[in-house]
Amino acid sequence: MSYATEPWQLRWQGLAVDQLHRTESTFALANGHIGMRGTLDEGEPRGLPGTYLNGFYEEHQLPYGEAGYGYPEAGQTVVNVTDGKIIRLLVEDEPLDMRYGNAIEHERTLDFRSGTLRRRTVWESPTGRRVIVRSERLVSFTQRAVAAIRYEVEPMDDVQLVVQSDLLTNEPTIHRTNDPRVAAALDAPLVNEFMMAEKSRAVLCHQTKASGLRMAAAMDHEIEVVGPEHERYNDLRTDIRVEADLARYTAAVDVKAGSCLKLTKYLGYGWSGKRSTPALRAQVEAALAGACQTGWDGLVGEQRAFLDDFWQVADIEIDGDDELQQAIRFALFHILQAGARGETRAIPGKGLTGPGYDGHAFWDTETFVLPVLTYTLPDAARDALRWRHSTLDKARDRAKVLGLKGAAFPWRSINGAECSAYWPAGTAAFHVSGDVAYAAQQYLHATNDECFDRDEATEILVETARLWISLGHHDQHDGFRIDGVTGPDEYSAIVDNNVYTNLIAQQNLRAAADAAERHPDKANASEEEIAAWRRAADAMAIPFDEMLQVHPQADNFTKHAEWDFENTPEEKYPLLLHFPYFDLYRRQVVKQADLVLAMHLRGDAFTPEEKARNFAYYEARTVRDSSLSAGTQAVLAAEVGHLDLAFDYLVEAAYTDLHDLHNNVNNGLHMASLAGAWMALVAGFGGMRDHGGELTFAPRLPAALTRFSFRMAFQGTRISIDVCETEATYRIVDGTELKTRHHGEPITITAAQPVTMPIPKAPELERPKSPFGREPRRH
Amino acid sequence: MSYATEPWQLRWQGLAVDQLHRTESTFALANGHIGMRGTLDEGEPRGLPGTYLNGFYEEHQLPYGEAGYGYPEAGQTVVNVTDGKIIRLLVEDEPLDMRYGNAIEHERTLDFRSGTLRRRTVWESPTGRRVIVRSERLVSFTQRAVAAIRYEVEPMDDVQLVVQSDLLTNEPTIHRTNDPRVAAALDAPLVNEFMMAEKSRAVLCHQTKASGLRMAAAMDHEIEVVGPEHERYNDLRTDIRVEADLARYTAAVDVKAGSCLKLTKYLGYGWSGKRSTPALRAQVEAALAGACQTGWDGLVGEQRAFLDDFWQVADIEIDGDDELQQAIRFALFHILQAGARGETRAIPGKGLTGPGYDGHAFWDTETFVLPVLTYTLPDAARDALRWRHSTLDKARDRAKVLGLKGAAFPWRSINGAECSAYWPAGTAAFHVSGDVAYAAQQYLHATNDECFDRDEATEILVETARLWISLGHHDQHDGFRIDGVTGPDEYSAIVDNNVYTNLIAQQNLRAAADAAERHPDKANASEEEIAAWRRAADAMAIPFDEMLQVHPQADNFTKHAEWDFENTPEEKYPLLLHFPYFDLYRRQVVKQADLVLAMHLRGDAFTPEEKARNFAYYEARTVRDSSLSAGTQAVLAAEVGHLDLAFDYLVEAAYTDLHDLHNNVNNGLHMASLAGAWMALVAGFGGMRDHGGELTFAPRLPAALTRFSFRMAFQGTRISIDVCETEATYRIVDGTELKTRHHGEPITITAAQPVTMPIPKAPELERPKSPFGREPRRH
Repeated sequence: MSYATEPWQLRWQGLAVDQLHRTESTFALANGHIGMRGTLDEGEPRGLPGTYLNGFYEEHQLPYGEAGYGYPEAGQTVVNVTDGKIIRLLVEDEPLDMRYGNAIEHERTLDFRSGTLRRRTVWESPTGRRVIVRSERLVSFTQRAVAAIRYEVEPMDDVQLVVQSDLLTNEPTIHRTNDPRVAAALDAPLVNEFMMAEKSRAVLCHQTKASGLRMAAAMDHEIEVVGPEHERYNDLRTDIRVEADLARYTAAVDVKAGSCLKLTKYLGYGWSGKRSTPALRAQVEAALAGACQTGWDGLVGEQRAFLDDFWQVADIEIDGDDELQQAIRFALFHILQAGARGETRAIPGKGLTGPGYDGHAFWDTETFVLPVLTYTLPDAARDALRWRHSTLDKARDRAKVLGLKGAAFPWRSINGAECSAYWPAGTAAFHVSGDVAYAAQQYLHATNDECFDRDEATEILVETARLWISLGHHDQHDGFRIDGVTGPDEYSAIVDNNVYTNLIAQQNLRAAADAAERHPDKANASEEEIAAWRRAADAMAIPFDEMLQVHPQADNFTKHAEWDFENTPEEKYPLLLHFPYFDLYRRQVVKQADLVLAMHLRGDAFTPEEKARNFAYYEARTVRDSSLSAGTQAVLAAEVGHLDLAFDYLVEAAYTDLHDLHNNVNNGLHMASLAGAWMALVAGFGGMRDHGGELTFAPRLPAALTRFSFRMAFQGTRISIDVCETEATYRIVDGTELKTRHHGEPITITAAQPVTMPIPKAPELERPKSPFGREPRRH
Repeated sequence: MSYATEPWQLRWQGLAVDQLHRTESTFALANGHIGMRGTLDEGEPRGLPGTYLNGFYEEHQLPYGEAGYGYPEAGQTVVNVTDGKIIRLLVEDEPLDMRYGNAIEHERTLDFRSGTLRRRTVWESPTGRRVIVRSERLVSFTQRAVAAIRYEVEPMDDVQLVVQSDLLTNEPTIHRTNDPRVAAALDAPLVNEFMMAEKSRAVLCHQTKASGLRMAAAMDHEIEVVGPEHERYNDLRTDIRVEADLARYTAAVDVKAGSCLKLTKYLGYGWSGKRSTPALRAQVEAALAGACQTGWDGLVGEQRAFLDDFWQVADIEIDGDDELQQAIRFALFHILQAGARGETRAIPGKGLTGPGYDGHAFWDTETFVLPVLTYTLPDAARDALRWRHSTLDKARDRAKVLGLKGAAFPWRSINGAECSAYWPAGTAAFHVSGDVAYAAQQYLHATNDECFDRDEATEILVETARLWISLGHHDQHDGFRIDGVTGPDEYSAIVDNNVYTNLIAQQNLRAAADAAERHPDKANASEEEIAAWRRAADAMAIPFDEMLQVHPQADNFTKHAEWDFENTPEEKYPLLLHFPYFDLYRRQVVKQADLVLAMHLRGDAFTPEEKARNFAYYEARTVRDSSLSAGTQAVLAAEVGHLDLAFDYLVEAAYTDLHDLHNNVNNGLHMASLAGAWMALVAGFGGMRDHGGELTFAPRLPAALTRFSFRMAFQGTRISIDVCETEATYRIVDGTELKTRHHGEPITITAAQPVTMPIPKAPELERPKSPFGREPRRH
C-alpha cells in the first residue's frame, strides 16, 4: 500500500492502521501558525495525535550526570494543544471506528492546489449499516488563526446519527523520553483557566504549568441535514457542553437513506505569553467570527487563490518521472505550510507536522528552508528572520555566558534560548549564527528590502560579526583562526578552523562591515571595529592539505583514521546509534555535507578543480546519516558534472518522507530534506547561485528526465527557466526585465523576449565512490 | 586557630565548630580497607560523618539531557556505612555536647608514629559538673578488619555517668547533588538483613538497595571503673540493645570525683558482593575475636611497630622549615593510610577520608600515589595494581563498547566500570590505561617482582598496548597518530596527538613487546602483533612547533588563543566554575601539568634545552586549578634549575590540605597532592628518576632549607640520601649494595661505605613567569 502517483495531490487508498503514524505526518495541514496532524476525524485509530501552535511550549529541567558552567538548565518541548479536529460519529449505536465493521472504501487526499485534506470513507458498521463519510479540512493561509472542517455523512440505510464535535485538551499520548521528569512535565501539561459553551459555540483557555504560556481554542458550527429529495430536516437535536478539558457539540437526528448531514466546524486558535485569559478569549472569538463571516466556501476560495499565486511563482515541472513530479510539489507544499504565516515565530525542523526534535528550530531553517522561501515567498523568509532578530537579546545573553561578544544564536530552541544538553554538538556549532547572517544577506540580495536591511539585518549582521571577532583570534602561524567549534558535520566536534564555519564567518564579517557603513546609526560600530572585521575576514585561516591536494574539513581532518566501511553492516546505521561519539569524531567519517556545503554556499571561494577533487574526497566519506545531506550533495555533484549521481541524491531528498527513508516520519516531516529536494533541482540541475547578490544559472538536464522547469522570484520579478537536454529557455512570468548569467554568459530576459540558450555538454566523468553500502537510496 | 607545628604529629587545640568539616578529614584514620573520618566520639557537633569500606558503594542511574551511545548508565557512590565510632556520654543529666556548657580544654592529636588519633577534653556541663574525657582511636594496619577505641572519663565532681556506645546505620547526612534521584539513592541506602546483641557484643548486617552489596559491623566492649584510690567499682549497670539500624551498649555508674571510667571498644567490619549474611556475620565476629584476643595494648603495639618499619623506609627529614617537616610526614602518613591494606581494591582520589569525587579512583592513583608506595611500601603498590588487573574484564568490555581492542580502564570508578557522565573529560582520557601500564612497569623495575610480572603485569601491558594500536593509526603525514583523546590537562579535550598520551603509549607499546617476549604463554601475542607494537612506538607522532621551538601539548595547541589572565580576577578561579568548557578548550590555558608531566614521566624523550623552553612556555599558561599540578611543576622546575620556584610548588602541594587551599578539604584529602609533595621532594630536589628501570639522582638543596634527607627502597635495598648545599651522602639503610648515578656520574653505595658526592652549582636563571595572579600560593 502506498501513495497514488498523481501530479497535484497525495492520495492514500485503504486504511493501513500500521501506517497511520506516517500518513498523519504527510497529511498534516499547517499555515506556519497552526499545525494539525492528519489524524482521522473520529480521533482513533491513530498513530500520534497532534495539534500545535507555533512557539507554544512547555519547559522542563535538563538533567546532567555531570553539570558544567553555562549548560542550559531549561529544556523546551512543543505541546500538543487542545485538539479541535475531532468529529465523532455514532451510526445507530455503533461509533464509527474503522478498526471495527468494514471499511468498504477509504481514501485520503492532500490537494496541493486547494490546500485541503479530503477524506472519503464508505463504512459498514458491525451491525451492517452503511454510511458514506466525506470530510475536507483546511488550516487557512489567509486567516492565520483559523481552521475549518466540512464533514458530511450520507447513510445508505435509515439510521439514527449522532455527531459529536470536540475540543479536547490534554489528550493522553506517548512520550518518547527516558527522563521521567520530562515525561511528567508533558503529562497533561495544560491547566484550565476558562471555559464557556453556548449554542453551537465553545471556548477553552488553558495555561502551561511551567512555561506559563496561555492558549485558547474556540469552535463554532453550522449544521444542516438534507433529505434525498432535498427536503430539510427540522428535528435535529443539538446540545453543547463544556468541562475543564473538553467542549462538545452534539447533534442527533434520525435520517433516511440517501440523506446528507452536513456539519461545518470553524476553529479559532491563539496563544500568548503576555496577554490575559479574557484577551485571549476575545482573540479566538474574533477569529471565529471572521471565519463564520467568510464561510466555508469563502475560506476554500481564499485558500485556492493563495495557492494559485504560490504555484505561479514556485512551481516545478518535471517530465519523465511522475513520482518525482509529485514528490517535488509535496515538498514545496509542506515548506509553504511550515513557513507561510509564521510571523516572527521560528520554523521548526519538523514544521508543525509532529513533535520530533521537541518542536525545536535549528540552523536547517536558515540554510535549507529559507532559500526556498526567499525565492518563492520572500515575506515568509523575512518573517522567519524577524523571529531570529526578535531573539537577539537571548542570543546576546548566551554570548555573554559563553564569554563572547555579540550574539550567539542557539543550536536548538523554541523561544530563542539555547536548549541543547550536549554542548559539543550543540552550543559549539557556532556556525548557526553565521547561517542566520547568511540567510539575512541572501534575503536582502533577493529582495532589496530596505526596511529589513535597516531595521533587522544590520543588527543581525553586526552582532554576529562581533561574535566571530571574539570567537577567533589572529595567530602568527595561520592568520585568523576559529578554534574549538563544531561544523555542520555532527560526526566531528570541537575542531579548529572548520572550513565551512570560517568561510561563513568571513562572509558574515564583510557583510557586517558593508551594512555598518550603509546604516551607521543602526550599527553603532566604530571605524576601527569595522576595519577589524575586514582584517579578520581577509586573514581568515582556510586549511589546505598540500599532500592530498584537498581542503580538510577542519584542521587535521585528512590526517584522521579512515572509517572501516566494508565492515560496517547496514543495520549499524545511523552510526551515532551504534558507535560512541569519540570514535566518530576521531575518524574521517562525515554525517552530512560540511566541506561540500561550504562549496555550495561559498562556491566563490573554491576553484572548479578544488571543487571536483574535494567533492570526490568527501563523497567517499559521507554516510548521510542526516537528512540534511542529500540535497547539498546533489548540488555539488551536479556542479562538478556527476549528473546521474546528482539525480540520485535529488530523488533521495525528495523521497525522504514519502518513503520514510529514516524511519521516523511518525515524528514529523523533515523540512530541510524537503527543501533539499528543491535545492537539488534549482541549485543543482538549475545551477542557480547568488554569490555576492548576483543571480546566475548553469542548467543541465539529467539523463533520467526529458525536461524540467522551475520558477522563482528575484527582486520582485518572477521568472521561469525551462530546461531540456540541449537548451534552456528563460522567461519573465511577472515583471519587466532580469539580467543574469547562463553558464557564465550574461543574458537579459525581458517580458517581451524569452531567451533560449544552448547548454554546454557535461564532461564525461567516472562516478565517484560512495562509502560501501551508502550509495544513494534508490526508489 | 590552626595546627600546632610539631614534627611527628598534627595537633589542634580548641573546638572550632566551623572548622570541624576540615579537621574531620585531616584527622581521618584508615588502613586502606576501613576509613573513619575524625568526628568527635560523641558524634556531634560534626561537619560530615563518614565511615567507609573500600569498594563498598551504592549504584544510581546517570541522567543525560541528551544521551549517546556507550554512555555509562550507572553511577557509583561511596556509602557512609554503619558508624562504630560513636560513644556518647551523659554527665548527670547533661549529654556531653561541646556546643553547650564550657570546653575548658580541648585538643585532638593525630600521631604519625603511633598511628592513633588522641583526644583530650576538659568539659564543664551547663550545670557546672566537670569531666576530663580522653580517647584514643585506631584503625589497625595489622588487623585490617579491625578498629578500636579507648575511651576514658574522669569526673572532677561526684556524678552519675552514662556511656552509650553505638553502631549506627543510615546516619542522616547532607547529599551535595542536584539530582534528586542520586540523593534518593543515597538517602538511607542500607537495608537491615541481620541484627544481634548479647552481653557487650552486637552485630548489624545490611545490604544496599541497588548495588546489592552486603556489609557487616560488629562491636565488643571492655569496661572498668577505678576509684581515686584504685578501688574497682562493681555497681556498674550495663545493657545492650539492637534494632534494625542501631545497636547500643549502655553502661551507667555513680562515681566519685577522681575516679576513671575506662571503656575499650573493638570494631570489626567486612563487606562482600558475593558472601551471604551468615558468612559476613561470621567474618566480622572472627575479626572481633582476634582484636579482643590481641587486646588494646597489643593493637597499639602492633600499630607502632608497623609504623616504625614504615618510617625506616620512607621518612623525610627537613631542616630549616618545621611546618614543611610536619606537612611532609602528614602527607606520607595519609598516603600510607590510603594504600596500606587496600588488597586488590582501588585507592580512591580522597583515600578513605571523605565522600569527595563519590569515592571514585582516578588515574591519580597510578601516576601520583603509586610511585610513593612503589618506593616505600611496594606490596601496597602491587595490591593496587592487582585491583586494576582484577578489573580487566570490565576494561575489555568498555573497550569493546568503544569500538576498541584490548582494555580501556575507566576514568572514574569504584568497581572498575566507567562512571564518567561527561565523556570528553572522562572516557576520552585514554591516557589512564597508559598510566596503569606505566605504574606497573615502574613497580616491576623497583621490585623485580617476577610473580607480578608473569601473573598480572604482562596481561595489563599487552591489553593496554592493544588499546593503543586500535586507538591510533599510521598516517602518511605524521606517523602513528592518536587522535581525538583528552590528555591530563582537563582544560583541553578531544585533541589530536597529545604529547603526554603519545609518549606514555610509546613506552606502553615497547614494554608490552618486552613483556610478551618474556612471557609468551601469558601474552598470547603473535610475532606480527609484537612487531606492530614496536612499529607504532617507533613511528609515534610527537608534534613540535618549529616557529616557537616548543612542543605543543597537542596538535595546534600553540596556535590557540591566549587566555586573558590580566582580566581574570581571583574569584573567577577555578576557571571551570566560571567559564564554559568550550572557552577553556579553545585557549592556551592549562589546568594542570600535561606536557610538563610528560617531561617528568618521559624525561628521556626530551633534551635539556627542550625541557627548559617547554617549562617556561607552559609555566606561563598553567593555572593549577587542579591539585595534581604543583608537585609535577616542582619536579620540572627543580630539574631545569628554578629551585626557588620548585620550593614554592613543593610547599603548595604539601599545604593543599592542611591549609585547605582548594576550599574543599571537607570532602576528603587530596591523595595525589599529598603524593605530589613527596614527588616534589624526592623527584624534584632529590632528582630521582627511574627511566628504563635505571635509578638515578641529581639532588639540589633549595635556598629555603639548610638540609633535607629522604629514604626509599629499590629492589629490596633501603637507602637514604642526605642533601645539603654542597654535597649529598648516599647510605644503605638495609641491604648490601646499590648502583646509581649522581648528577649523571655512576656511583656504588655499599652497606659498609656511604658515598658523599659534591653537588654542582645550579645555573642562575630568571624566574619564569606564572599566569597573572596564579603564582604558587605562599603560606
